[in-house]
Amino acid sequence: MLSAAHVATYNAVAMSQPQDAADCLFETVAIAGVGLIGGSIAAALKQRGLCRRVMGVGRNAERLAEARQRGLLDEASVNLVAAAARADLLVFCTPVDRIVPAVQEAAPACRPGTIITDAGSTKQEICRRLATALPAGIEFVGSHPLAGSEKQGFENADANLFAGRICVVTPVPTSSRAAVTRVANLWKALGATVVEMEPAAHDRAVGETSHLPHVLAAALALTLSPGNRNLAASGFRDTTRIAAGDPDVWAAILQENARPVLESLERCEEIVRSFRTALEAGDSDKIRELLVAAKAVRDALNRDK
Amino acid sequence: MLSAAHVATYNAVAMSQPQDAADCLFETVAIAGVGLIGGSIAAALKQRGLCRRVMGVGRNAERLAEARQRGLLDEASVNLVAAAARADLLVFCTPVDRIVPAVQEAAPACRPGTIITDAGSTKQEICRRLATALPAGIEFVGSHPLAGSEKQGFENADANLFAGRICVVTPVPTSSRAAVTRVANLWKALGATVVEMEPAAHDRAVGETSHLPHVLAAALALTLSPGNRNLAASGFRDTTRIAAGDPDVWAAILQENARPVLESLERCEEIVRSFRTALEAGDSDKIRELLVAAKAVRDALNRDK
Repeated sequence: MLSAAHVATYNAVAMSQPQDAADCLFETVAIAGVGLIGGSIAAALKQRGLCRRVMGVGRNAERLAEARQRGLLDEASVNLVAAAARADLLVFCTPVDRIVPAVQEAAPACRPGTIITDAGSTKQEICRRLATALPAGIEFVGSHPLAGSEKQGFENADANLFAGRICVVTPVPTSSRAAVTRVANLWKALGATVVEMEPAAHDRAVGETSHLPHVLAAALALTLSPGNRNLAASGFRDTTRIAAGDPDVWAAILQENARPVLESLERCEEIVRSFRTALEAGDSDKIRELLVAAKAVRDALNRDK
Repeated sequence: MLSAAHVATYNAVAMSQPQDAADCLFETVAIAGVGLIGGSIAAALKQRGLCRRVMGVGRNAERLAEARQRGLLDEASVNLVAAAARADLLVFCTPVDRIVPAVQEAAPACRPGTIITDAGSTKQEICRRLATALPAGIEFVGSHPLAGSEKQGFENADANLFAGRICVVTPVPTSSRAAVTRVANLWKALGATVVEMEPAAHDRAVGETSHLPHVLAAALALTLSPGNRNLAASGFRDTTRIAAGDPDVWAAILQENARPVLESLERCEEIVRSFRTALEAGDSDKIRELLVAAKAVRDALNRDK
């Protein structure tokens, strides 16, 4: 069977012919961390002809060679510094706790004018530490594409992963407007709708919309008694789907965004307490009232879609 | 656009020709409550040629006429007693709090040998009250097909809704083996895998696998700040999908199964507290440990699929 990833790879190869210079946003893009997100950025860049050369950077030469064979990369390197010296855009797609040290390692090798961004799910700590840490002429602008999947690895890369999705772009105080625009244009060219936010506001928002759901999905999965597994139908499966995400990636996210997540969790627990009180009291009017309000919220999301 | 429901209807009409008598499990099936579940049973019965006649029973004659026009029903009636007198199988697909009174209204009109079942998401209270309440020769066997959707109404009926799904069948102490077998064979003929359980064990299990997820999905939906709606991506949408379910249906389920739901909720809250403690302490090893365990549970469900 031809999987979506294979189709994406095929398209990427088929369309990676010399491009019209007008579409070309960057000469050489280096992607550090070629997993689902990094691989999908690579696939999309090539399919849409947005740069001359995509370099993949990682620690595992074999895996990188495989990604290159699939047509996701033009070059593969385990040498971040050497790759940084040749790129005019670097995109860091590693787990959030590894982004700052990797940027700090790469930046001194970059040529002036090089732009650095990332795809991390948290922004405040990354932006705070990188705002003033870089050599003159090297700019960092944070990014967080709200796309992804519980699936991992470049095998699941999809050139259309960002199409129709939101990408939050978080400038740092030292960001030039030109650099922010170039990063925003990159995501727009990948099909995303760009929303510019302060890093702290971003983290509070995704603490609620993404990280809290992850904690609850994991807690729900852990509540399942092994003997009841055969009765876990589509409702349980949907509600816990994201709990299959990479534990390393998510432990780093939750650790880095602990305070906003705890604040959202507190509000959620208050609502759970309302349910509990109504259930204990057999107060079906109150139960129904809570369910009606929840349905209104969820239906509104469907209308947004 | 031709929706799945339209296709199902078309197939139902196309295939509702006189059947091979061997496939015919019942002469006349009366379905009380022609919504998503009742409508899907009707569609599946007709498509698979499992009975001679499908009667839809409800309170709204116009809606029933519409369901009949779509090819889901051979007859439509607002008179439950009259329909009961002509059916040899009655299936109650109303919200759980309306099943017992409706069965008690219908049963005295049934001919001896008639079998009654339901599709309610709770079983203990229904089975307890119906075990001894019926006239001689009329048997009740509980059913709960673990299929459904946050979508409502026969417009979303699907003749394949039960294919590959679990259906729990809960006999009552007075059920004859013959009646249990006939009800089990009905669900098998609709494509489901039948699991026989005690009503109380069923309710404890689905309290955990279905009703608790509903409470958490609703609580999560209610936690969403209106201003963050545009950042609610696929993870949030999946985790809260079931919160769009019918509040009347779900209020009745939660009310009826309050104790098992509260017990499951307590265990889930304990796990949430472990997350909270780890987040507060910045204990990323513990966070990771919880996420690894949750992923193992969720991955196992994918393997079951």
